[in-house]
Amino acid sequence: MNAVLREIRGNPLLWLLAGVPVALAGPRLWPGAHQLLFVLSVLAILPLATLLSHATESVAAKTGDMVGGLLNATLGNLTELVIALAALQAGQYMLVKASIAGAIVTNTLFMLGASFLLGGLRHHVQEFNRTSARLQAILLFLATVAILIPSAVAQADATARSGFTQSLSLALSLVLIAVYGLGMVFSLKTHREFFGSAEGSAAHGEEAPWPLGAALGTLAVVNVLVALVSEVFVESVQHAAEGFGMTPAFVGFIVVALVGGAAEMASAFSAARKDRLDMSVGIALGSASQIALFVAPVLVLLSYVLGPSPMDLQFWPGSVVMMLVATLTASFVTGSGKSAWFIGVLVLTVYVIFALTLYLLPPRG
Amino acid sequence: MNAVLREIRGNPLLWLLAGVPVALAGPRLWPGAHQLLFVLSVLAILPLATLLSHATESVAAKTGDMVGGLLNATLGNLTELVIALAALQAGQYMLVKASIAGAIVTNTLFMLGASFLLGGLRHHVQEFNRTSARLQAILLFLATVAILIPSAVAQADATARSGFTQSLSLALSLVLIAVYGLGMVFSLKTHREFFGSAEGSAAHGEEAPWPLGAALGTLAVVNVLVALVSEVFVESVQHAAEGFGMTPAFVGFIVVALVGGAAEMASAFSAARKDRLDMSVGIALGSASQIALFVAPVLVLLSYVLGPSPMDLQFWPGSVVMMLVATLTASFVTGSGKSAWFIGVLVLTVYVIFALTLYLLPPRG
Amino acid sequence: MNAVLREIRGNPLLWLLAGVPVALAGPRLWPGAHQLLFVLSVLAILPLATLLSHATESVAAKTGDMVGGLLNATLGNLTELVIALAALQAGQYMLVKASIAGAIVTNTLFMLGASFLLGGLRHHVQEFNRTSARLQAILLFLATVAILIPSAVAQADATARSGFTQSLSLALSLVLIAVYGLGMVFSLKTHREFFGSAEGSAAHGEEAPWPLGAALGTLAVVNVLVALVSEVFVESVQHAAEGFGMTPAFVGFIVVALVGGAAEMASAFSAARKDRLDMSVGIALGSASQIALFVAPVLVLLSYVLGPSPMDLQFWPGSVVMMLVATLTASFVTGSGKSAWFIGVLVLTVYVIFALTLYLLPPRG
Repeated sequence: MNAVLREIRGNPLLWLLAGVPVALAGPRLWPGAHQLLFVLSVLAILPLATLLSHATESVAAKTGDMVGGLLNATLGNLTELVIALAALQAGQYMLVKASIAGAIVTNTLFMLGASFLLGGLRHHVQEFNRTSARLQAILLFLATVAILIPSAVAQADATARSGFTQSLSLALSLVLIAVYGLGMVFSLKTHREFFGSAEGSAAHGEEAPWPLGAALGTLAVVNVLVALVSEVFVESVQHAAEGFGMTPAFVGFIVVALVGGAAEMASAFSAARKDRLDMSVGIALGSASQIALFVAPVLVLLSYVLGPSPMDLQFWPGSVVMMLVATLTASFVTGSGKSAWFIGVLVLTVYVIFALTLYLLPPRG
Repeated sequence: MNAVLREIRGNPLLWLLAGVPVALAGPRLWPGAHQLLFVLSVLAILPLATLLSHATESVAAKTGDMVGGLLNATLGNLTELVIALAALQAGQYMLVKASIAGAIVTNTLFMLGASFLLGGLRHHVQEFNRTSARLQAILLFLATVAILIPSAVAQADATARSGFTQSLSLALSLVLIAVYGLGMVFSLKTHREFFGSAEGSAAHGEEAPWPLGAALGTLAVVNVLVALVSEVFVESVQHAAEGFGMTPAFVGFIVVALVGGAAEMASAFSAARKDRLDMSVGIALGSASQIALFVAPVLVLLSYVLGPSPMDLQFWPGSVVMMLVATLTASFVTGSGKSAWFIGVLVLTVYVIFALTLYLLPPRG
Repeated sequence: MNAVLREIRGNPLLWLLAGVPVALAGPRLWPGAHQLLFVLSVLAILPLATLLSHATESVAAKTGDMVGGLLNATLGNLTELVIALAALQAGQYMLVKASIAGAIVTNTLFMLGASFLLGGLRHHVQEFNRTSARLQAILLFLATVAILIPSAVAQADATARSGFTQSLSLALSLVLIAVYGLGMVFSLKTHREFFGSAEGSAAHGEEAPWPLGAALGTLAVVNVLVALVSEVFVESVQHAAEGFGMTPAFVGFIVVALVGGAAEMASAFSAARKDRLDMSVGIALGSASQIALFVAPVLVLLSYVLGPSPMDLQFWPGSVVMMLVATLTASFVTGSGKSAWFIGVLVLTVYVIFALTLYLLPPRG
């Protein structure tokens, strides 16, 4: 446990851990103070996500490449998954879907764009491995297309009843999880050389891995804490949004996605500044693909068990457009294997415009 | 004729030819047994398509590169054209359009994806000529965009009356056929070096070409047979679909396209397994472009002569989405000039999801 | 002034300048003769645009690279801007928006396609710098996506009221102009080496630059003349279109865009024929990006001052499709760094089909 404590002392972000008990006690101490609870829960999730990410990597480092890579790939978006699960149990399917779409868009546009910008401010032109970037962009494009098909068909065909969308979403989820499994065989076993630089060398790099016991213990404890704090977050977020003048779409799409992906963003940005753009691109695109291929279908399947009613994969048309634009942008931008600061600005601009749109959009109903 | 007979004996697929007379006699023997007639006609079309394809190449091999290439390019999708003609004469325009869209989607996603998968299972990473793949992907993208414009405008603008769509489709068809002619000058005359590996060396390769007389005779006889069997197929397909629980959209899009393209698929897959992915990509993308640039406009023009009323090029919105996704996928996937088994899995996944969607889609009306 | 006169004598196109006073006097001499006035104003704008373009470059050449590049980039689409301003003041927002969309589509499809065709007729295969072409294609894609977001969201979400579209368009315009400024820092200061061949060496090349005084004087006088003639053009265009049997959409999209971009097209085509395709691609894509990043937002902002009411950026759905297809086409086509005549034919075909569609489209309302 010493290694864990040492890291907490050395990393200012982790001091926020002190806020976790406050956030958990919040709903009893200040019932109805939604805006306060919202801020407290966000501040508590950030350090927990960082701990979770480091614990996952430590376990991965200890268990050997194959099992480790598998763990890393499966638990990489654990924070997003746990937050979405809390929303799922509360039956807030609009928030669940917005957070899926938002995570894809935020990872591809914000994480990638900010990595290019931060890297580009320090290095004139940055090069990265085109072959693996392309492979990951193709994977992301196809994964995104797959989860968009129920929405596209439902929009295109007015006769598509909800029963149809529901059974298509279920069938799709099973197909996607199978493809996700094959993808793991591909990236961890048959063709690991293409993914080496991005995942192999323990994505967060610099710190020494924790001992296995400490890491597993941290993983278990922190997961429970994230789940508990997420409940506070999900309960407060709607009312808090109204208080702050934010639309629910903005909260789900932008705020939840930024909070859920904070730990990965820190890694991606630090890699970009060290001119290791391969790693940044790998984290950003890999994480987005994982949301589409794993988190989204798992949530659909779990909705049959945990939710008040089955959830489908029919997204709000505006977010379909945003997801498609985000993945097309990622494909174009990574296709050249080169980057400069202005490319980062352009990618971030698209993200800012999406955020603006969601912020200004009048709430429905 | 000996060469033709020798091939029939050597190729188990061609034993199915025995089913041709049964299929032709079917409607008299078992009137109303739609499902049986449907299966019989499919089983009869498969060997006929294989013969047709080999006869075309034999004529091409004998008449010299220029005329041969022309023949190959024009007659390459003869099976699809003949089946669509049978549907056209029966006034089943929905089936005609579904088979056009389905042929484009099946050639780009299924044929390309399965080639990548089959090739990738044998070879770790396969490389192919990026320059010609890109050229063909651009051609396919632009051809697809062109035939989608009437649908896109009609969807976008509610005031677009059917008279407008009709005259636009007619004008478009004339433009596309002119472009198709120019494309032939390009690929067979001025820039044949880019298309060399894919078409020059007799796509189906291994077998020796037949003598010219045998080939021409086969071409004539088999064409008539395909036309006759297609009539049985088109008459039985709707009722059979209901019997099998398939939607008409699924039949037109998936079943007709797979049946019509069977011969080309056999060639593409065999080339992929021999690590000649250039040829597979050339057959898949070339065949899809040909449907858009040649088969579709010819059908529009012929509908003025053969059909009960003129046919336009306004597609069902869902199939517009599918065609666009298919061509974008083909462009991304072939852009890198490299392939591995998982890319094949991903491309096939999109196809499977499309098929699932069409299978689950409630029939309209 | 001698240099200016010498050029006028040497360039047959500039003899059309004689038509400028006729066009200006037209509305008094032949009031109501809309078709005549339309033709006269088009014939007068062409030589004025050529003079404007040469004057801008002469000023640029004299003032040093930094200021010159800035001028060139800002004034490059001056003709389009002045014509659109005349339409803006007349409150013809549909014409303004059609001319923005048309300029993007015409620059990317017609200018690029014709450059490839004209260059390809003289040179077997032309190569161009992929890195800068890609960078410019990405810039164009992101700029186009940005100005399409209000339309996409408004289409996708029926609850999006016009107040929302209006405030989003305003916010967007401010963001785009800021990005445009950063883009200038990028292309003229930090990363000028990528844009060198396309803009640095005085795009129109061959002629010697005019003295600074003559150039500035020409710039001032010609600008006033273009503004005056544009008023005649905008007043006559609607009625003339009806007389010629053209839809207003066709006029705004095709005629205005071809007239406004004539001078740049002449430069792009001449560069392509000299096998300097880098320059042609740079002019075509750069000019289209500039319309999206600079002309469009400036018009939105100016509508608050000059127009009868604020203008938003919500485009007709059909033109959204056309802009997206045009930018995707440009990205694909320039991605390979190679070109041949048939690629030009294909790109032009898409443009011709768009023009056909707009020509046949029944007028609304």
